[in-house]
Amino acid sequence: MSKKLTEIAANKSFGGWHKRFKHFSTTLNCEMIFAIYLPPKADTEKVPVLWWLSGLTCTDENFMQKAGAQKTAAELGIAIVCPDTSPRGLNLPGDSDNYDFGVGAGFYLNATREPWKNNYQMYDYITKELPELVRKNFPVNDKESISGHSMGGHGALVIALSSPYRYKSVSAFAPITNPVNSPWGQKAFTGYLGDDRESWNAYDACYLIANGTSKQQLFIDQGQADNFLSAQLKPDALQKACAENQHPLKFRLHAGYDHSYFFIASFIEDHLRYHAQHLKN
Amino acid sequence: MSKKLTEIAANKSFGGWHKRFKHFSTTLNCEMIFAIYLPPKADTEKVPVLWWLSGLTCTDENFMQKAGAQKTAAELGIAIVCPDTSPRGLNLPGDSDNYDFGVGAGFYLNATREPWKNNYQMYDYITKELPELVRKNFPVNDKESISGHSMGGHGALVIALSSPYRYKSVSAFAPITNPVNSPWGQKAFTGYLGDDRESWNAYDACYLIANGTSKQQLFIDQGQADNFLSAQLKPDALQKACAENQHPLKFRLHAGYDHSYFFIASFIEDHLRYHAQHLKN
Repeated sequence: MSKKLTEIAANKSFGGWHKRFKHFSTTLNCEMIFAIYLPPKADTEKVPVLWWLSGLTCTDENFMQKAGAQKTAAELGIAIVCPDTSPRGLNLPGDSDNYDFGVGAGFYLNATREPWKNNYQMYDYITKELPELVRKNFPVNDKESISGHSMGGHGALVIALSSPYRYKSVSAFAPITNPVNSPWGQKAFTGYLGDDRESWNAYDACYLIANGTSKQQLFIDQGQADNFLSAQLKPDALQKACAENQHPLKFRLHAGYDHSYFFIASFIEDHLRYHAQHLKN
Repeated sequence: MSKKLTEIAANKSFGGWHKRFKHFSTTLNCEMIFAIYLPPKADTEKVPVLWWLSGLTCTDENFMQKAGAQKTAAELGIAIVCPDTSPRGLNLPGDSDNYDFGVGAGFYLNATREPWKNNYQMYDYITKELPELVRKNFPVNDKESISGHSMGGHGALVIALSSPYRYKSVSAFAPITNPVNSPWGQKAFTGYLGDDRESWNAYDACYLIANGTSKQQLFIDQGQADNFLSAQLKPDALQKACAENQHPLKFRLHAGYDHSYFFIASFIEDHLRYHAQHLKN
């Protein structure tokens, strides 16, 4: 099992470092790239990690270039790791025909159908292989939080809800909250998991809120002018699931904001400070 | 002369708006796109403008997406306008063969050679047509400052130095300070202006410092790990010109920082606060 990391970029940023690495993932059976922001504090001591899961079509680069998170991460002494959003470079049949399935659209699940199941194991990559690799190679401690946007918001919620007590805190921007009832989710789950809808529930935040064991607060920001609001993201379903199951939810709806990184950048500082509070404990 | 603007994007950002517009430029004889950030204060009163000139290969989008300037601009009540870096869509012979000449590489000058002179009039576009258009269409007052990066840093310095008293302040990140002695500048000036090197001087910051009338302070940030430092940017030449001509210079060299937007993002807040101080007067 190769643990070798190759540095492909390093940019000094707010006194710390933004770096990109490639490595061969034994979970995904392909070469992957991830990015890490190391705050200045990491020069002298181990720091906690915020995992950021990006949305459809994104790579490790979008958040690092567009969210403007580094200033506050530097101040708070938090490392941020941005994985890619799917396996890459495999050329599986049809893996690049659609923006919302295959390449750039791994949905943070473990596929069970051919031909996807040999590679599309993003849940395990994000929760097992990559954390092990990051802890082995960077000055990070064992405290971690998780966040993400859209498909990555779905990923953050599902991963935190299905791993009670692991993440100190979880937040999301415009997450797909109820993928079993959204076109994006139905397409992805049918392709990766097949027609047995029971098997989809493990990757549905609303289902996990109703049937899981986590009672961890969810912090969610949603733009009211988001084009995907009612058809794909369904914050109402999440709010209903939380209300019916006494699941703690901090939900903010922001008038005028859309689905873009301009929205994320406007509120990322609040999320970083929220995570920092929890990562102290 | 068409003054019509067509809005092609609008994203709420830090309580204000990032917007993109296309318009037909009568100076450049082609359709152009620019972006503007309007801070919340612009909802109720006229605000000053910071002109941001981008570097080689950039469009109106790079700074708006990557510099993380909106938070501070919102706080300070400054609008930011990002023009494109050259005429677009003309398909002049050879205009897309090189990243450092033609499309994406207008060098903020008025070309005098065929076939460029009918379109590559970026100096006039930035200093005349676009300001008139912006003042006519947005809640901005007549106070303006100017900044930019690399080729755009060259543009900001040259424009401010050749327009004494117009801009309240000028700053630059990693500017091409002495283009008549740099490969990028020599290639561009030969192509756009011809072999008469006398004609190049009007677009050389070091020449203008020695021979112009402006004594306005220049505020410059430069990364010490910038790959283009000694061959293309030549901050030593600028420092020498300023010292020899008693031209006020605030120059900062930052160890470890490169030429990327990670560098710009790390220090843009300082620039915005610098400009805000001057735009008060």
